[in-house]
Amino acid sequence: MLGDEIVSRINQLGTISETPEHLARIFLSPEHRIAADLIMSWMKDAGMAAHLDAIGNVCGRYEGDRPGLPCLMLGSHYDTVRDAGKWDGPLGIITAIACVADLNRRGVRLPFAIEIVGFADEEGVRFSSTLLGSRAIAGTFDESVLNTRDSAGLTMRDAMVAFGLDPAKIGAAARARGELHAYVELHIEQGPVLEQQNLPVGVVTAIAGATRLAANLSGMAGHAGTVPMALRRDALAGAAECIVAVEAFCKADDAGLVGTVGIINAMPGATNVIPGRVSFTLDIRAPADAHRKLAVAEIVGWIEAIAKRRELSLQIDVTHENRTVPCAPSLKAQMAEAVAAEGYGVFELPSGAGHDGMAMIDIADVAMLFVRCRGGISHNPAEHVEIADADAGARVLLRLIENFRPGSQTREAGGGQDRAR
Amino acid sequence: MLGDEIVSRINQLGTISETPEHLARIFLSPEHRIAADLIMSWMKDAGMAAHLDAIGNVCGRYEGDRPGLPCLMLGSHYDTVRDAGKWDGPLGIITAIACVADLNRRGVRLPFAIEIVGFADEEGVRFSSTLLGSRAIAGTFDESVLNTRDSAGLTMRDAMVAFGLDPAKIGAAARARGELHAYVELHIEQGPVLEQQNLPVGVVTAIAGATRLAANLSGMAGHAGTVPMALRRDALAGAAECIVAVEAFCKADDAGLVGTVGIINAMPGATNVIPGRVSFTLDIRAPADAHRKLAVAEIVGWIEAIAKRRELSLQIDVTHENRTVPCAPSLKAQMAEAVAAEGYGVFELPSGAGHDGMAMIDIADVAMLFVRCRGGISHNPAEHVEIADADAGARVLLRLIENFRPGSQTREAGGGQDRAR
Repeated sequence: MLGDEIVSRINQLGTISETPEHLARIFLSPEHRIAADLIMSWMKDAGMAAHLDAIGNVCGRYEGDRPGLPCLMLGSHYDTVRDAGKWDGPLGIITAIACVADLNRRGVRLPFAIEIVGFADEEGVRFSSTLLGSRAIAGTFDESVLNTRDSAGLTMRDAMVAFGLDPAKIGAAARARGELHAYVELHIEQGPVLEQQNLPVGVVTAIAGATRLAANLSGMAGHAGTVPMALRRDALAGAAECIVAVEAFCKADDAGLVGTVGIINAMPGATNVIPGRVSFTLDIRAPADAHRKLAVAEIVGWIEAIAKRRELSLQIDVTHENRTVPCAPSLKAQMAEAVAAEGYGVFELPSGAGHDGMAMIDIADVAMLFVRCRGGISHNPAEHVEIADADAGARVLLRLIENFRPGSQTREAGGGQDRAR
Repeated sequence: MLGDEIVSRINQLGTISETPEHLARIFLSPEHRIAADLIMSWMKDAGMAAHLDAIGNVCGRYEGDRPGLPCLMLGSHYDTVRDAGKWDGPLGIITAIACVADLNRRGVRLPFAIEIVGFADEEGVRFSSTLLGSRAIAGTFDESVLNTRDSAGLTMRDAMVAFGLDPAKIGAAARARGELHAYVELHIEQGPVLEQQNLPVGVVTAIAGATRLAANLSGMAGHAGTVPMALRRDALAGAAECIVAVEAFCKADDAGLVGTVGIINAMPGATNVIPGRVSFTLDIRAPADAHRKLAVAEIVGWIEAIAKRRELSLQIDVTHENRTVPCAPSLKAQMAEAVAAEGYGVFELPSGAGHDGMAMIDIADVAMLFVRCRGGISHNPAEHVEIADADAGARVLLRLIENFRPGSQTREAGGGQDRAR
């Protein structure tokens, strides 16, 4: 049973933290380096060559039936948010290593190499820029981020030097499309759908694109006692109607649309004053870009109509936009076969959260396998995966690897072997 | 035209402030004392005896056709909020002085005395306890407030001593019911109703009672991308539905009910996190207590139903409650006569804001006259009254005084004269 060792290693990695009170393993910190060394030791135990690349990704390579073959790349990230759970990221790395260890124990070599990457920074806690590790590998790292400062005023460039990395060599972490057959990531769901479906694993259809908006409504502040209801231009009542409308609109959708108002501020903010101004955020996601864009336009239209009817002035702007990353149909099909072969119902679901595949799509087809997590809770110390589900995820991933049929995107690339050492 | 002098004095008093940038005249401050001295000088110019009472109220007395008669008491407050307008409070004091000055010029003595009180603290900015001046006069001053500290850590007791008052003598400011025929206050409306009615003045029916509540909704925080709409327990969407319901409920009421949500906090408060907890305030007012209490119960019922349907846990508590202070029918009738005699349409409206009459009701019948203010704006430097409206208010008040018919509540009280000196 692969689950035992996986959970044991999850617990071991979970102790490597900034403080013992809560789990925080931040990019380029001393504990980040300790974790990298531990993961590399596990890779080597599994019969892999392992090294730290130019951005701090932990890279392991298990050769195929002859050296230098293009790889199936597996991975996830080993940084965390603050006050994190133990599973978000590490489960994908540790499960992949457990699969390779199993192949290695059995002396199995496949007609492709396997690489495992522990991405250095997916969460983006320290420098407010996410996917740093996978962007470096995809060759899309934005070098201007090197000048970003953390909360202590240290630039990313200086933090890299302190960690023992050379910022001038980040380009060397980039991989070519021909070196990879595909990128496959196992990750906890971070949502409640698999639990509700009573399934240990699910096949991801796409990493949903997201549009974030900032809305500002302005009406007229006034005394809560002296302005009759009919004469009010209450910005908060208007915002409340917008929030209810966004919820109703998304609930009525049957194609995975979700809409969230996460931040609201009402000004001036006194019990006895009618709010004159309200700002709120909107986060709209859907598994298909065209669907999301249409939904955003319709939601903005609803909000405009509410503002107009209430004589509120409205400013609404898109602050952030991520395209949808669809999982490759052929990879999804192979993942579904593996799930079914392990005896589980095949259930497809989109990923509403972002993952390293959003960067990896630039150099490889992407697939993901979700593992059920308790209550859908993540980014929280209460994050939890049952050992049986960790085991189920590992068995599905191992079967996928052993039965993997590369697509046509890759060619044999001599550079792969060198890079991996 | 009385309006000219009134506006001139409003402007003069408006310069007496903590800082020249914004108007702030806080209880027991040096500028509070300067303002008191100026108002006393105006009282004396109008032929009145004037003194500062034990709490810092400015008290003036104009004898009737013989000394020691019970009085018609007029007044308002001379403290302000921070960043205040010039009219809220001072208009009532200055207009009353202008009326007495007019009587004095004409040598008119009435069959009752006239007293004018400039209440020391109605707003409650410094010690978070309102109506301090009128409560002292009504004999309901809570002595425990003397131990309250201002933001600088000074107790009210010490601030009184620094101002030149003796905290042990606050009881001496109290007046007996028999000394007053009535308490009549002229005040700006602080709302938009008279402007909408195109009337300079309005007869107040009651000072509306208020119930304030604090509501807390708890659902489940979650990732904005990973929790499908159907599985959410979004505390902010629930609060938004409550806010919309409160507004609809109050809008449908035809007896002056108003309901306001002025403060809202959504936690944890991130663009990509479904709010798990939301707190908000409710301020519910109506001109009749029974109506308000029924409305509060119905609104709480709606909120409970919304919380239950959405599987949110709810904590809702009353944090503050003020009874309604009805204006005396006989005084309202006399006020209406005066309004009509000056050629204006008689329009009755409740006061949604609190006033010193809320304390004075304990020792006297109460009436109020509202004067139109631009846009209903108050507690704001943009607060404004047209000179013609200030004049209209003064003419109505003067006519009310000259035609005043005391009710049956009072008897001649010898103490009145002594107290007023």
